[in-house]
Amino acid sequence: MERGLFITFEGADGCGKTTQLELLAQYLKDYEVLKTREPGAKGLGEKIREILLNYDAQVSDRAESFLFLADRAQHIDMVVNPAVQAGKIVLCDRHTDSTVAYQGYGRGIDLDRIRKLNDIAVNGRKPDLTLLFDIDVETSMARVGNHKDRMESAGINFFNKVRQGYLEIAKNEPQRVKIIDASKSIEEIHKNVVILVEELLQTAHL
Amino acid sequence: MERGLFITFEGADGCGKTTQLELLAQYLKDYEVLKTREPGAKGLGEKIREILLNYDAQVSDRAESFLFLADRAQHIDMVVNPAVQAGKIVLCDRHTDSTVAYQGYGRGIDLDRIRKLNDIAVNGRKPDLTLLFDIDVETSMARVGNHKDRMESAGINFFNKVRQGYLEIAKNEPQRVKIIDASKSIEEIHKNVVILVEELLQTAHL
Repeated sequence: MERGLFITFEGADGCGKTTQLELLAQYLKDYEVLKTREPGAKGLGEKIREILLNYDAQVSDRAESFLFLADRAQHIDMVVNPAVQAGKIVLCDRHTDSTVAYQGYGRGIDLDRIRKLNDIAVNGRKPDLTLLFDIDVETSMARVGNHKDRMESAGINFFNKVRQGYLEIAKNEPQRVKIIDASKSIEEIHKNVVILVEELLQTAHL
Repeated sequence: MERGLFITFEGADGCGKTTQLELLAQYLKDYEVLKTREPGAKGLGEKIREILLNYDAQVSDRAESFLFLADRAQHIDMVVNPAVQAGKIVLCDRHTDSTVAYQGYGRGIDLDRIRKLNDIAVNGRKPDLTLLFDIDVETSMARVGNHKDRMESAGINFFNKVRQGYLEIAKNEPQRVKIIDASKSIEEIHKNVVILVEELLQTAHL
């Protein structure tokens, strides 16, 4: 018997999703909430995240994809599934849609292959709700400011493709993926998040 | 135009393959030889190998498979392919057959899935020759002695399944995979290795 929920937060760096995840966690203070992320959840994920963000030589695209998948498989098996089965609300910063948007739409790796690999990594687990924080690339890059890592130094053309990819995903799965206008103020965005999550909670009878 | 060779060394821990790789490298001193290994080739591979061998909590089977695949994809793209294309003889300690034998036959992960994932990781690269050092499990475990890591503490039943898996692989691909009796002396085994490699060199016209 599963009783919890799995909610994922998606969007470009600088879209504000991590802030919104924190605000939602505070809003849900009467529930058991687990805040987590991909890549780099606590434990093995942190070690993989270190490699992905800080390795100083060239990582081949295919190798990078597999590292994300290793992180994901571990995260689902050891973190997400046990929490959802225990009745918790899992709030996850990035999940499968990031891989499809960044690796597939962004870098041009075959989408069908990515979806098949994601299927293996998630082993049947699907988000009950995905919040897509949509924002134009200039604004999100300006927000990110000087904080540069390997993922964020890839250029504006790349991030435009990523954004279009995310919107395509939302179009294909409107039931699961809800687009949120992330150009608004933190408070307004939070209100929109709460409306969507309250709808889900009523259906879920948590 | 490719001019080099890709030779992989396979077998259980304690089968002597690493010693034989060194002896073959010395024998081939008139060629440009690259000694390497999976998991854990120089660079990114070392970082992944650290995780695979030393992580102290539970790594899910599916996560472990993806880590091996990340290591492999990086190794093929950044190490093996450039070396073979430059005319080198690449001697590689463990490759795809280890995954099939350990993860597939040993741990019971779906073989067809492993083969498909391996295909993605190797991206068309196939060993010109695979040397399978076959030895009964008691002997190899005795050789390994006190050196225990996570992979080697899995028990004798597991290693029996791994051995049978390797023999099955050799049966299915007799042209590529040559079985070597690894219970013999180091010198005798080396002689057998040299015979097989000399045959390959004559065909390859290096």
